[in-house]
Amino acid sequence: MLAENGVISQQDLADIKAGLEKIAGEVEDGSFTWDDDHDEDVHMAVEGELTRRIGTAGARLHTGRSRNDQVATDIRLLAKDLAADLMQENLATRKVLIDLAEKHFGVVLPGYTHLQHAQPVLLSHHLLAYYWMLERDFARLLCAYDAADANPLGAAALAGTTYPLDRFQTTEALGFDHPIPNSMDAVSDRDYLLDLEYACSVAMIHLSRLCEEIILWSSSEFGFITLSDAWSTGSSIMPQKKNPDFAELTRGKTGRVIGDLVSLLVTCKGLPLAYNKDLQECKPGAVDAATTLLDCYVVMQGMLSTMTVNADIMLAQAKVGFTAATDVADYLAKKGMPFREAHAVVGGLVLECEKRGCGLEDLTLEDLRAASELFDEDIVGCLDPVAIADARTTYGGTGSSAVREQLGEAKDSLTADQALFTD
Amino acid sequence: MLAENGVISQQDLADIKAGLEKIAGEVEDGSFTWDDDHDEDVHMAVEGELTRRIGTAGARLHTGRSRNDQVATDIRLLAKDLAADLMQENLATRKVLIDLAEKHFGVVLPGYTHLQHAQPVLLSHHLLAYYWMLERDFARLLCAYDAADANPLGAAALAGTTYPLDRFQTTEALGFDHPIPNSMDAVSDRDYLLDLEYACSVAMIHLSRLCEEIILWSSSEFGFITLSDAWSTGSSIMPQKKNPDFAELTRGKTGRVIGDLVSLLVTCKGLPLAYNKDLQECKPGAVDAATTLLDCYVVMQGMLSTMTVNADIMLAQAKVGFTAATDVADYLAKKGMPFREAHAVVGGLVLECEKRGCGLEDLTLEDLRAASELFDEDIVGCLDPVAIADARTTYGGTGSSAVREQLGEAKDSLTADQALFTD
Amino acid sequence: MLAENGVISQQDLADIKAGLEKIAGEVEDGSFTWDDDHDEDVHMAVEGELTRRIGTAGARLHTGRSRNDQVATDIRLLAKDLAADLMQENLATRKVLIDLAEKHFGVVLPGYTHLQHAQPVLLSHHLLAYYWMLERDFARLLCAYDAADANPLGAAALAGTTYPLDRFQTTEALGFDHPIPNSMDAVSDRDYLLDLEYACSVAMIHLSRLCEEIILWSSSEFGFITLSDAWSTGSSIMPQKKNPDFAELTRGKTGRVIGDLVSLLVTCKGLPLAYNKDLQECKPGAVDAATTLLDCYVVMQGMLSTMTVNADIMLAQAKVGFTAATDVADYLAKKGMPFREAHAVVGGLVLECEKRGCGLEDLTLEDLRAASELFDEDIVGCLDPVAIADARTTYGGTGSSAVREQLGEAKDSLTADQALFTD
Amino acid sequence: MLAENGVISQQDLADIKAGLEKIAGEVEDGSFTWDDDHDEDVHMAVEGELTRRIGTAGARLHTGRSRNDQVATDIRLLAKDLAADLMQENLATRKVLIDLAEKHFGVVLPGYTHLQHAQPVLLSHHLLAYYWMLERDFARLLCAYDAADANPLGAAALAGTTYPLDRFQTTEALGFDHPIPNSMDAVSDRDYLLDLEYACSVAMIHLSRLCEEIILWSSSEFGFITLSDAWSTGSSIMPQKKNPDFAELTRGKTGRVIGDLVSLLVTCKGLPLAYNKDLQECKPGAVDAATTLLDCYVVMQGMLSTMTVNADIMLAQAKVGFTAATDVADYLAKKGMPFREAHAVVGGLVLECEKRGCGLEDLTLEDLRAASELFDEDIVGCLDPVAIADARTTYGGTGSSAVREQLGEAKDSLTADQALFTD
Repeated sequence: MLAENGVISQQDLADIKAGLEKIAGEVEDGSFTWDDDHDEDVHMAVEGELTRRIGTAGARLHTGRSRNDQVATDIRLLAKDLAADLMQENLATRKVLIDLAEKHFGVVLPGYTHLQHAQPVLLSHHLLAYYWMLERDFARLLCAYDAADANPLGAAALAGTTYPLDRFQTTEALGFDHPIPNSMDAVSDRDYLLDLEYACSVAMIHLSRLCEEIILWSSSEFGFITLSDAWSTGSSIMPQKKNPDFAELTRGKTGRVIGDLVSLLVTCKGLPLAYNKDLQECKPGAVDAATTLLDCYVVMQGMLSTMTVNADIMLAQAKVGFTAATDVADYLAKKGMPFREAHAVVGGLVLECEKRGCGLEDLTLEDLRAASELFDEDIVGCLDPVAIADARTTYGGTGSSAVREQLGEAKDSLTADQALFTD
Repeated sequence: MLAENGVISQQDLADIKAGLEKIAGEVEDGSFTWDDDHDEDVHMAVEGELTRRIGTAGARLHTGRSRNDQVATDIRLLAKDLAADLMQENLATRKVLIDLAEKHFGVVLPGYTHLQHAQPVLLSHHLLAYYWMLERDFARLLCAYDAADANPLGAAALAGTTYPLDRFQTTEALGFDHPIPNSMDAVSDRDYLLDLEYACSVAMIHLSRLCEEIILWSSSEFGFITLSDAWSTGSSIMPQKKNPDFAELTRGKTGRVIGDLVSLLVTCKGLPLAYNKDLQECKPGAVDAATTLLDCYVVMQGMLSTMTVNADIMLAQAKVGFTAATDVADYLAKKGMPFREAHAVVGGLVLECEKRGCGLEDLTLEDLRAASELFDEDIVGCLDPVAIADARTTYGGTGSSAVREQLGEAKDSLTADQALFTD
Repeated sequence: MLAENGVISQQDLADIKAGLEKIAGEVEDGSFTWDDDHDEDVHMAVEGELTRRIGTAGARLHTGRSRNDQVATDIRLLAKDLAADLMQENLATRKVLIDLAEKHFGVVLPGYTHLQHAQPVLLSHHLLAYYWMLERDFARLLCAYDAADANPLGAAALAGTTYPLDRFQTTEALGFDHPIPNSMDAVSDRDYLLDLEYACSVAMIHLSRLCEEIILWSSSEFGFITLSDAWSTGSSIMPQKKNPDFAELTRGKTGRVIGDLVSLLVTCKGLPLAYNKDLQECKPGAVDAATTLLDCYVVMQGMLSTMTVNADIMLAQAKVGFTAATDVADYLAKKGMPFREAHAVVGGLVLECEKRGCGLEDLTLEDLRAASELFDEDIVGCLDPVAIADARTTYGGTGSSAVREQLGEAKDSLTADQALFTD
Repeated sequence: MLAENGVISQQDLADIKAGLEKIAGEVEDGSFTWDDDHDEDVHMAVEGELTRRIGTAGARLHTGRSRNDQVATDIRLLAKDLAADLMQENLATRKVLIDLAEKHFGVVLPGYTHLQHAQPVLLSHHLLAYYWMLERDFARLLCAYDAADANPLGAAALAGTTYPLDRFQTTEALGFDHPIPNSMDAVSDRDYLLDLEYACSVAMIHLSRLCEEIILWSSSEFGFITLSDAWSTGSSIMPQKKNPDFAELTRGKTGRVIGDLVSLLVTCKGLPLAYNKDLQECKPGAVDAATTLLDCYVVMQGMLSTMTVNADIMLAQAKVGFTAATDVADYLAKKGMPFREAHAVVGGLVLECEKRGCGLEDLTLEDLRAASELFDEDIVGCLDPVAIADARTTYGGTGSSAVREQLGEAKDSLTADQALFTD
């Protein structure tokens, strides 16, 4: 660009290009000698060596730029790479969730509110709830990518430069979407790192929720799933024991990523324009947040895709806790009884069951009719967990027809997001 | 919707509608009696009173819904309102920045790096750097709005319902963009509040930076601006004293909003599906963050639009600190001297000035030529701060032609964002 | 003090005292009229009214002080009160834990690592673990109290005053420990609020852990405890249902208090000396954190002291998951087998049990001897959960003798901390 | 201890001791081979190698302990070391502040509120404000040290052990203050790391405030100090330029340390007893926070002790902004005029000066008497910044006698804290 715009000569360009290519080759094959004692950073090292080799042309490499805009450019390129990697692993994890939802279609487990049994739900429905969280995370990562995708080069130290630089040309050459329209903003903006760390934080929150459930479900008391040997840690003394270490670590690392976000927010608070050295603190946290989430995505894929689902235990628990109560009340309401009154009738039946030590499904039609004349033979369909789950057929519900439709939408959204990478 | 889908009768619909409208009227004119001791929340109070008035039809109001999806729906409507209000005030603040940039076009002040004078810049350029920060904040607020703009109603407690609800109909009636495709996600998702609080946090970071500068610029040592009496606080004893209280408070409140964000992140960590009472903690923080930013936007508009700019002091300072040094080096570089060598020559001249206690502009051509033969009459243009700023004409630079172009882009982006509200 | 040091006359003193006492009486009985439109704060309102009533003597009230040191004094008095209240409720909660540990002495439940059964432990031991966390919280609250217990009065705006004030006299009169030795530090220090919010944050972390267990233990899958009706929330339709709302809310509010801490840290970052208006943001967060923890302590006392412990379910679960394995290995090790080898032998036995679908306690002595000749009749004592727990008699262990000793130490520490309030 | 209590034989003890000493020697001289692929951690590596060398005795090394209590013990030893190092550097930094306060005794600069000139203060007084902040930081670090100073060894996995371990003996051998009284608390408590990170966070807040002032004071507008070449960063082109990079980095790293604290708080929230793998995340953040503060202390010592104070510029600025106004009002008040009235009179004088473009010290006695008859010759002493500062002689004030007393107290507190390390 400098040569095209007459800032340096064609000869300088040729020398610089040849020199840089040679150095790049040496860096790659490991033969380049870094002098950590004297070179402040990679730019200085390369420029210094170039100048030693090709003379004054090398010293012209830095024309029209400053370390402020160089560093900003490098971090943006890095942020784009990190965001793109994260989007790829986000897609892979969503794929695993969809596969699981398909594989275990029909499995019923208790749906919880307040960690208390509420109503039976399809495991597929439960898993797809996480799918949609991750789908939103993709959108946040994409925002972070787009935020980074602007070119600061040409801002020089803070004010732009007097050289006839063509910032649109470097924008295209470096693969940025557009040049940043204000040079002071260009050297001092780190919003794109905040966006990246925020996207990572929310994504970790979502994984922490899933991990909490994996830990609960792996417990002796729940017993809903069995983790594979590869994705759990055993004990020399208790070979059957499978500690959900990976789920715990992921849950624990949520704090780490949120800490990275807070760190950057605090650092940026109250900084006057334009560049301040405080900003040097920005990069490590962003890289830490991104690589942590990256690792956690990979862990989730392995852990989820290899775990065993204990469908019979899930089903048995789905009956515990009068999870049919709401449906019995709805049954009465549909026959004309006001909603709150139906609630009271069912409340009485539940108390009766508690006394007898049985479930609602163990009551006879006679028992039921003693509570309300509206009960009839067709109440049976309201007492079986599978039937109960299946009856919730409205859009977004846990009925199998609704979940099948939802699965289709999930697949479509996965395909659409994947397309961003194949184009 | 319940009547249209045959869940309740037309008569019930008519009774409910008439009853609710009457209650709404009473709430508005203050004649409705709230019974805080017995009613758990606004939904219970209204439904209870309705039932007392119209009998069993009132009890059918709650058919097919749960407090979990009702609360989720209410908070999303609230979040949309808050985000919309914030976007409006964001636009108003950007308008003030553009107006200021136009009004003070031509004023030159020192551009800083490390709070040290670096190069002269246009005040308009400096102000527009904040414009672009706020423009990005608008985008984040819009994301938060869009995140909230999905309908959870029909998710019931967590699993959907057995009533033939039409969720697309309620979606349209309530002005949501689409129904949420998973009922468990619908009752437990609070991402849209995180998005809102994050958008507010970054926006506050930006305001804290601007406030830091307002505080610096109002100091006796800088003296760049004088705040208006209305937007500063005086002292009974020192009538001339103008404490930048509003800028300090805004800077201080940055902590408050970041605290709100952290609070919600911590609360959401590790929650299993679906609804947990922990989520009740979500709303106050989001409202606090949004209203804090709202107030701060209004404060910024008032403070910025009424402050006096002391252009002469800015200009005088723009000469202090050898801010011309880079341009003199560039002058030599353009005449063929390698960049690093030019730096060394100018470094020598600066040292000489330091010794003499003068500025670069006070050196004679002879003095300059003693350092390098490349100096000529035309060097004068590199020594005046206004000319120095003006020479940075590449896209995004501080040259007046470039800033004028930037101002046009800023106005276009303002118009485009405003259009979202006029359509 | 002003009169004693000759700053104001005895007549002024008498007038001021009488006037202030009259105003205080009116404030108490509600007859004092606050003029929110004109009075900036409570100090201005009282001083204004006093001057209207007693004339120039009233205007002398403010002699030798500034709002900066007045506000600092008020907040410190408030912080001391809040810390003292929190210490009282901390003690009350520790008392509840000790009472529970005594009441349920002998109850055995599974001890968990990774939420997996590890070894049986006494419920009393488990509860006392929380006792010690709260004991440390008391120490932190005391530190916060001590940090606040220093007198800023006399610092005036920032530099001290020219009046012959006796700061030691006001220190004693206001009940502070000592006057602050540096006036600039006096008006700008808010460390004591940070200390208070930090103490609250860690205390909430501890409560969040206990609440997590209460929620788990209340679940259908665990069934270890049943919350009382008063400290849980029912459902109109499922009268047996007891949502652990209070535990969830306490867990959720942990985020709120941590948010308050972060908020203050962010606000204080980078503030130059001495007073800055940013500090006005400090008080609300500290009050919020303290009152939140105060409420949560009260909630914990009620919830814990009224819950029912299902000892039989705990005991039954204590056998599940081969929790005896470690002890069987220790048995072999004590008979001379190297530790790691003993592990391998028991690992083989566990596998065998898994195959047979039985527990270690169901193996015959013959079965055991097939694995190692070292097994003998006395192995029985290593297979019963109660005996296993009881065998851990070293200091701090879960053996009943050790726990009894620990209980004694806990009581002693409670008595010692309580003594701070009775002296 | 195991041998003394008969758990292992004297022969085993001798073998283990000799083996461990040999390995320790090899580790020290670098000849020990670590097998990162097979050994999970340092404990496993050493124990494995020991067993390979001395046979079954090596396998008895681990008797009566678990990795849970081993890891807890190691981290506590590390935390104690870190806290002790930090206390040492805290003392060294306080020493520098005291030395500076002595060296520059008599230098007067403007005291600021709202970054506006308020009243002249002694530079020594200003610096000592920071001394007291650091003195409080020492107390917090000591608390963190004490919190870590308790022995978890003997807690085994979570419940204690059946071996007759003497935990008081290991406590003494390892230099801990006391054994932890509850084994479940012992393996799951990380409060001492929170305490350490909190102490580091507040310490960084204090340094960030001092750094903000160093940055302001180094600016062209303030010019109060000149940093040494060694503790600032120059520019090849502007040799006189001294960027306060170290101060900026320290201010920026405040975010990092606060992020570490938040990270740990989030990780600990809601963890049930006893050990969870999440806790593995605790150590890196604590080490990061402590080493960051350690570096920053060293930086501060270097930067502060080598900077040049431009006393003349400070004094000149101390006159700007009517900093005498309060004293002139106090002068009138002492002659009997009510405080608020005196304020009004001085306000009028200031306005008059503003109009004339002069300072209060430029008014004649006649001018003054026109405003109030109470003015007399002795007013001169209220108009000179040095005299004004000097007049604030009450305890804690900026008068030189008071500051000298304060300096004595500071030295005493330094000596007292240093004594903790010499005993």
